[in-house]
Amino acid sequence: MKTSTCPSSLYLLFFFTIFFDSFTASRFNIPRLSPIKGAILQEPELLSSERNISGDYEDLFYNQTLDHFNYRPESYSSFQQRYVISSKYWGGSNSSSPIFAYLGAEAPLDNDVLSIGFLPDNAVRFKALLVYIEHRYYGKSIPFGSRKEAFKNTSTLGYFNSAQAIADYAEILMYVKKQYHAEDSPVIVVGGSYGGMLASWFRLKYPHVALGALASSAPILYFDDITPQDGYYSIVTKDFREASETCYQTIRDSWSEIDKVASQPDGLSILSKKFKTCFPLKMASELKGYLLELYSAAAQYNQPLRYPVNVICGGIDGEASGSDILSKIVAGVAAYEGDHKFCYFSPKNESETAVGWSWQGCSEMVQPIGIVNNTMFPHDPFNQTLFNSHCNTLYGVPPRPHWVTTYYGGHNIKLILRRFGSNIIFSNGLKDPYSSGGVLENISDSVVAVNTVNGSHCLDILGKNYGDPDWLVKQRETEVGIIEGWITKYYADLKELKIYGNRNL
Amino acid sequence: MKTSTCPSSLYLLFFFTIFFDSFTASRFNIPRLSPIKGAILQEPELLSSERNISGDYEDLFYNQTLDHFNYRPESYSSFQQRYVISSKYWGGSNSSSPIFAYLGAEAPLDNDVLSIGFLPDNAVRFKALLVYIEHRYYGKSIPFGSRKEAFKNTSTLGYFNSAQAIADYAEILMYVKKQYHAEDSPVIVVGGSYGGMLASWFRLKYPHVALGALASSAPILYFDDITPQDGYYSIVTKDFREASETCYQTIRDSWSEIDKVASQPDGLSILSKKFKTCFPLKMASELKGYLLELYSAAAQYNQPLRYPVNVICGGIDGEASGSDILSKIVAGVAAYEGDHKFCYFSPKNESETAVGWSWQGCSEMVQPIGIVNNTMFPHDPFNQTLFNSHCNTLYGVPPRPHWVTTYYGGHNIKLILRRFGSNIIFSNGLKDPYSSGGVLENISDSVVAVNTVNGSHCLDILGKNYGDPDWLVKQRETEVGIIEGWITKYYADLKELKIYGNRNL
Repeated sequence: MKTSTCPSSLYLLFFFTIFFDSFTASRFNIPRLSPIKGAILQEPELLSSERNISGDYEDLFYNQTLDHFNYRPESYSSFQQRYVISSKYWGGSNSSSPIFAYLGAEAPLDNDVLSIGFLPDNAVRFKALLVYIEHRYYGKSIPFGSRKEAFKNTSTLGYFNSAQAIADYAEILMYVKKQYHAEDSPVIVVGGSYGGMLASWFRLKYPHVALGALASSAPILYFDDITPQDGYYSIVTKDFREASETCYQTIRDSWSEIDKVASQPDGLSILSKKFKTCFPLKMASELKGYLLELYSAAAQYNQPLRYPVNVICGGIDGEASGSDILSKIVAGVAAYEGDHKFCYFSPKNESETAVGWSWQGCSEMVQPIGIVNNTMFPHDPFNQTLFNSHCNTLYGVPPRPHWVTTYYGGHNIKLILRRFGSNIIFSNGLKDPYSSGGVLENISDSVVAVNTVNGSHCLDILGKNYGDPDWLVKQRETEVGIIEGWITKYYADLKELKIYGNRNL
Repeated sequence: MKTSTCPSSLYLLFFFTIFFDSFTASRFNIPRLSPIKGAILQEPELLSSERNISGDYEDLFYNQTLDHFNYRPESYSSFQQRYVISSKYWGGSNSSSPIFAYLGAEAPLDNDVLSIGFLPDNAVRFKALLVYIEHRYYGKSIPFGSRKEAFKNTSTLGYFNSAQAIADYAEILMYVKKQYHAEDSPVIVVGGSYGGMLASWFRLKYPHVALGALASSAPILYFDDITPQDGYYSIVTKDFREASETCYQTIRDSWSEIDKVASQPDGLSILSKKFKTCFPLKMASELKGYLLELYSAAAQYNQPLRYPVNVICGGIDGEASGSDILSKIVAGVAAYEGDHKFCYFSPKNESETAVGWSWQGCSEMVQPIGIVNNTMFPHDPFNQTLFNSHCNTLYGVPPRPHWVTTYYGGHNIKLILRRFGSNIIFSNGLKDPYSSGGVLENISDSVVAVNTVNGSHCLDILGKNYGDPDWLVKQRETEVGIIEGWITKYYADLKELKIYGNRNL
């Protein structure tokens, strides 16, 4: 069984952005990475046996408020929100044993229970209750009775956003604590990528619900021009260049080659054949888009055991030295995708993640990612005006590109959080292109960064594998140690206040 | 000119609650204290001259988003929100001089500029930019074009709540900082009563906008049964008992006397004459409601220079010793209201505050205040079920009594905030009945309580008077010293990070 993983679909947004002014409408049909992609290398035989506890999970639903923030008649509508609990290893309420809560992101919850191994892998050690909560508008947590109704227009879609989602999580976690008489149990929230942003924001907005957060690969600074727009592609480029200087040069030089061939008579047909595309190319930008997606995915999910960046560069550099540039690129694709494939770049169905994240990116999760300079990709700056107009056309409402920094902050984060807030781990792998928008330095004693030089996207919260490199094992150990420290302090505080406290303070 | 003051209208809510099961529908027409009431003793000739800077205020409007938390077509509507700025004493952006922001509460902003003296009184010392922001749905900050439309039904009223209000404040303060190139200026938010709750919550939810908060007389723990329901009336009782044991006993014994007379033939007419009511009483509970309101207002606004609790008790105890109980009560009323008055308990027009707070109390600001025991008042417990049904009848939607503690927290606040958050002053006068729901103990080094044993509601944020007692002068000095400490630390941080910081962190 192939398990899902840390959401890969933040990755999607840049497709809506990066190609905006160079591609035509068809760019919005570009096949996207599914959440499976990221974990495709994690074969079941490599899973540690501790994690096979799926029989102990309860699948539950909570009657969730549609609109936490208003009191209009419609606000009181509710929907069934899915959450999953395992109490197998929980130490119980008498010992105030902790609760580990995975905050669902832009995907159905189904695969998270097994793939987010950080929770089950540490359940025994912490005697933790495990809770996984699905994000509204994904999976089985759909308001308005059906996906069709929920996604019909912005009147129904409009409730689909991060502030409502973390309020959902607050309600469910408070309810679970009550149900399990676990009012004193510390809650640690865990999330990756978009879910990692949610985890860090949840600790900041709901400190009375979560004691701490593990925010894996959370690019919370990739908003509102805090991070330079070419942060993402600079790292993709760096990853390839570090793998191989010649590989990097070949890719860098390939774009004009593609244009040159495409401009010849019958050029698109030549390219289609050469690249074995599953359908005839209608323009050069389609091919360029696929390749950019492929290189980016390889860099973002540059997982140990395989290191796809090396695989691609191995293909490119392995081609006979006299070969032309495009033959080298084709060899790289074949090495990555497998040369047994009948064709490459097959169109995929729109996944739930793609559909949902398209809305989220067009409403509030506006991450201005572009290509300006210092990359191996063609110049393609982010254009907020065009992006706004694209979103307006798609949904009839404009994005609010400043809302994330208004509500959650982000600017001057070291100044703001060095004396405010506590207990957040921002973990990043520095080979992950999204680490460019992450928090990479310690901010205070307990708002800390845990980086790995060789890591990619969200590796730390995936399940342990016997083949994990030492640096990944160590990263996880560091994180677990930090969380243990929070909990120890919390128990000391709890004891002191239970004895000396008065009223219900 | 009589200036307004710290909002008195938290006080209103208990009228909706306390009388619910003993009074009939008419109780909802009980005249309420206007915001003027609290400051009625603050005569203009006593104002310190420093505060006469009204000519330097700019009256401005901000194009505010109706619904920050959703992306429905209606969410994008906007309204004009009023704010007032004085830059006369501001040190400017080069020196990153601070911004003091008064967060408007359940009243029009008009009177706040002069009555909330804490801001102008400290403008020179801090070289502060002063900003006053009106709360949505009050004063001139009305969505939907008119009060009539805005209050028509819950479809329009539903956007009227605290989460939207503090998001409004965040937007305006970020806008003001930008306009004044004051991105590095620390913002200190100030509020009293409900506005004090908003100030403390604002610091917790928007630490990237406000460096610190002065939350005066903010009963943030009077929600969701954190505070015992009879906290409020226990303190009213204590205030009277401390003023005079005989006064307390007289009041305690008066309720059954009122009932006894009322049950006689023509009893209500006798009571109407005896109490010189401005209209014939229709039931005994009307009179009891008025008296309870009067005692409570005296205790809540037990201001120095007059001490209304002493005034009432002076009247009661001063009546000839042979007098009957009710004559003593009448003498207390006359002493408080002035015996020149033609009649007492005149019906008042519904103020904006009363109308607005009625909605707020019935939607989210559900403070369960009741009379259970240990008070001088008749037993009248808070009944959530009846309250819900009353609100449902009034507005067609039920209250969400747990939302405040879900969104803002409150339970176990010492445990939660001792290692999270910073820079909040909770100030209380312990004679204020609402102090029963306040934070009265230091929680951490910088989340602190500043109490006065003899203080009442919000005295600290009113303007300095030459006749202020020493303890009040000292309370304000303590607060100013604490705020100065926050700002000094902030400047040190700013300097350090500007020099050593990289990226836009």
